[in-house]
Amino acid sequence: MMQYDRFLSQAAQTSKGSAIRKMGVMAVKVPDMISFAPGYPDPLVYAWAEFREIANELLSGRDSSVLQYGPTIGHRPFIEALVELLATRGVRAATEQLLITTGSQQGLDLVGRVLLDPGDVVLVELPAYTGAISAFRNTGARLAGVRQQADGIDLDDLQEVLARERAAGRRVRFLYLVPNFQNPTGLLLSLEKRRRLLEWASRDDVLILEDDPYGALYFEDAATAADTRPIKADDDEGRVIYLSSFSKTLAPGFRVAWVTAPEPLIGKLEVIKQTEDLLTPSLDQHIVFEAYRRGILVERLPMLRTFYQDKRTVMQRTLREELGDAVSWPEPKGGFFLWVSLPGGCDTDEMLPRAIERRVIYVAGRAFFVDGSGGHTMRLSFSLPSGERIVEGVRRLARLVKAELAGALTER
Amino acid sequence: MMQYDRFLSQAAQTSKGSAIRKMGVMAVKVPDMISFAPGYPDPLVYAWAEFREIANELLSGRDSSVLQYGPTIGHRPFIEALVELLATRGVRAATEQLLITTGSQQGLDLVGRVLLDPGDVVLVELPAYTGAISAFRNTGARLAGVRQQADGIDLDDLQEVLARERAAGRRVRFLYLVPNFQNPTGLLLSLEKRRRLLEWASRDDVLILEDDPYGALYFEDAATAADTRPIKADDDEGRVIYLSSFSKTLAPGFRVAWVTAPEPLIGKLEVIKQTEDLLTPSLDQHIVFEAYRRGILVERLPMLRTFYQDKRTVMQRTLREELGDAVSWPEPKGGFFLWVSLPGGCDTDEMLPRAIERRVIYVAGRAFFVDGSGGHTMRLSFSLPSGERIVEGVRRLARLVKAELAGALTER
Repeated sequence: MMQYDRFLSQAAQTSKGSAIRKMGVMAVKVPDMISFAPGYPDPLVYAWAEFREIANELLSGRDSSVLQYGPTIGHRPFIEALVELLATRGVRAATEQLLITTGSQQGLDLVGRVLLDPGDVVLVELPAYTGAISAFRNTGARLAGVRQQADGIDLDDLQEVLARERAAGRRVRFLYLVPNFQNPTGLLLSLEKRRRLLEWASRDDVLILEDDPYGALYFEDAATAADTRPIKADDDEGRVIYLSSFSKTLAPGFRVAWVTAPEPLIGKLEVIKQTEDLLTPSLDQHIVFEAYRRGILVERLPMLRTFYQDKRTVMQRTLREELGDAVSWPEPKGGFFLWVSLPGGCDTDEMLPRAIERRVIYVAGRAFFVDGSGGHTMRLSFSLPSGERIVEGVRRLARLVKAELAGALTER
Repeated sequence: MMQYDRFLSQAAQTSKGSAIRKMGVMAVKVPDMISFAPGYPDPLVYAWAEFREIANELLSGRDSSVLQYGPTIGHRPFIEALVELLATRGVRAATEQLLITTGSQQGLDLVGRVLLDPGDVVLVELPAYTGAISAFRNTGARLAGVRQQADGIDLDDLQEVLARERAAGRRVRFLYLVPNFQNPTGLLLSLEKRRRLLEWASRDDVLILEDDPYGALYFEDAATAADTRPIKADDDEGRVIYLSSFSKTLAPGFRVAWVTAPEPLIGKLEVIKQTEDLLTPSLDQHIVFEAYRRGILVERLPMLRTFYQDKRTVMQRTLREELGDAVSWPEPKGGFFLWVSLPGGCDTDEMLPRAIERRVIYVAGRAFFVDGSGGHTMRLSFSLPSGERIVEGVRRLARLVKAELAGALTER
């Protein structure tokens, strides 16, 4: 049996698989498993009939660009539509400031490759999205964590971490954050902090990578569209790279997302994308473009907001009923996630095998913390399971947590 | 206006856009341009009706995996089908030795990221596919060129280049090559050389990256399926990473391809793919899988072979009629390309603006040579234009070449 270690790059030797992806596979393998692990949208609310009609028209053969190679930057009419979509979010962008990507994950990877050399520092929230953490780590970058508060990132801690990294002689390239219904915490960054972050970026000469997959999915009982205004909307200086996606609103299987950034950076991202996959798949781009152009997306958003809000409500209510004050979480005003803190004695990584025995899974929180903390936290996604399954899953989880707490008491 | 140079990574500072991609954009912009530049398949022979029927069924909503996130490794039934497809090419692979990629370009990029650190050496053919060159260069690797002969790579030169690079203290990681109807030369590597390459890889402890997008498109007047047997088919030791794709046979807009490699390497490629795009788009995978499962691909191959063979014949005949012995090329036994050498005095880069004036374009050969040579060569793709357009385009090109030659004579 041949050994390959001697052939591997540094990145290949050190990279680790995603905790979320691992859980996704697990969920499929165990019968009657209730999974709160991956942040999958619910296929029940995909616009199946509309996609089918659109695909049927696109595949008539009249327009060969539907199945042909196309520009790396993306399908031109689609880019023009995105300029319009961005305007509804308050973001003024020229067509030259956009690049269609194969999911926002590719946007994260491209930004990492364009801005990071080994040893460079990225500032990320504590906790932060694991897919972003991996993408940045694969470039050899160092990740420095910044604490969060109820209204988002802690600006004092941000300043301290920046100062500490610079004092150590390191180059801090950008701050990565998810201002709207953050993955994994569900937190919403306040408008005041958004404004102050732009001032901070300018004063301290750093860039901001703003990742916004969930902004359109605010819950009307707790937030408005105005609360989700992108940082990018007020970025007069060109400090912000903005990512957004159709994965959570239309369907993730299309892998269609985009980057909005200053033109010189788009040029660099485009060149790296050429070597990653040449272009985002043409049929997917065309279908998503048509779904946007025909108003299907905009029309469905109110329904989607209510749909996911209801699931969140069911999960919150059941958690409170079953566990009372034993656990806590920030109430999500949008998005897919409930971020649960257990009493200090619990370790959600260690609990996981016992959760699987009880046929319920979550993502253990530690994977989201670049400083190794968060052992008593877990991310619960309420987006995919039905209301009934959420109730049943939370009950299974609650029985586990009670057993763990009883065990912890006994051990003392 | 903000400057971004201080924020850019090494890779972003040094990477350059693809010459082929640039020509692709050019072709669209100039009216009545005849493009022999990009290697696009002809949409006339896509299975539009079948794709439409398949998409119609898949989008019924019965199977949510069609539009959902799925495993990074790929859709499981599709992987099983590929094991079967590989067997028809003589390649025995287990399901654990496969990874679906977003086009073969992603395969090239992933292999680069998994095997290469800055300063490592990749051996490539002179000339070689530009997309591979860029993908490897983006890792900071050094590319060393190996000469080709009529039956493919020059094994003596290969040995010399390897020895030279090792003598200089460099780590040689793998040899990249396209054995079947190489891009850009169209050359077919002899079976004897394939066998000897495996011996060489074992003896000298290197890996081989075999890229095979065109193998199924051999021309029956010049080659057989047996002539295209992958090197991977006889790779008992696990030295070969094999890439293949549906882009040239079904349609490139799906961006569906795959890697076959030893299991430990697949694991590493998978982890890097997680950070690049999480998964290859689901709908595209499902459509391509169904097209394969229903026999649509296999059924159409004989027609495709004849179709592209006829275009090659038209291009060769017209070139001979118009330019006689002034130019030469190796006769392609398959694939999409004619590799033309002009008399030494001609520089195809310099000629390009004058070609565009005459409304015909090609890819200037220098972009394919990692040693900067090849200034008198050009790649002509016969795959996309109709027979009539090929004739007209070659005539335009011939008038240009004659004018260049006359000019060169005058200058002496």
